Amino acid sequence: MPKFMDVHRGFHNVTADQLMEAHKKDLEIEAEEGVHFERAWLDPTSGHVFCLSTGPSADAVRKVHERAGHPADEVHQVDVEVE
Amino acid sequence: MPKFMDVHRGFHNVTADQLMEAHKKDLEIEAEEGVHFERAWLDPTSGHVFCLSTGPSADAVRKVHERAGHPADEVHQVDVEVE
Repeated sequence: MPKFMDVHRGFHNVTADQLMEAHKKDLEIEAEEGVHFERAWLDPTSGHVFCLSTGPSADAVRKVHERAGHPADEVHQVDVEVE
Repeated sequence: MPKFMDVHRGFHNVTADQLMEAHKKDLEIEAEEGVHFERAWLDPTSGHVFCLSTGPSADAVRKVHERAGHPADEVHQVDVEVE
């Protein structure tokens, strides 16, 4: 299953609780699109959120975020991962 | 220790081996700046690389990437992480 990193902008001064709330909305509906969000990271100063997921396509990832009310600004299929 | 997500652009058509080579250059010198790169992800189509790290500051992360020959386009301090 491909992996994706998506980027949201404009989340300035969002708190940990607010990020968790938004993330839970994704988790509640993600299975309907075959997607799973693994982790998300927030920089409250720059307002950037990065979400790492697996799913069938970038469109499926986009659809979950749109349905949850926070569309992604970018979705990247990250075919290569290193540790 | 703060966490950081940094973004590089322009890595179009880079292979897994090439990413690993670039990542190894970071790993070789990261300790000198107190940084550790945990994982990196590449979208070879859009040319984006995302690196997750821990370190003392965004400047320390920037310095490792600069010394390794691939300066980051953005470095975000990701103070919040959810799963």
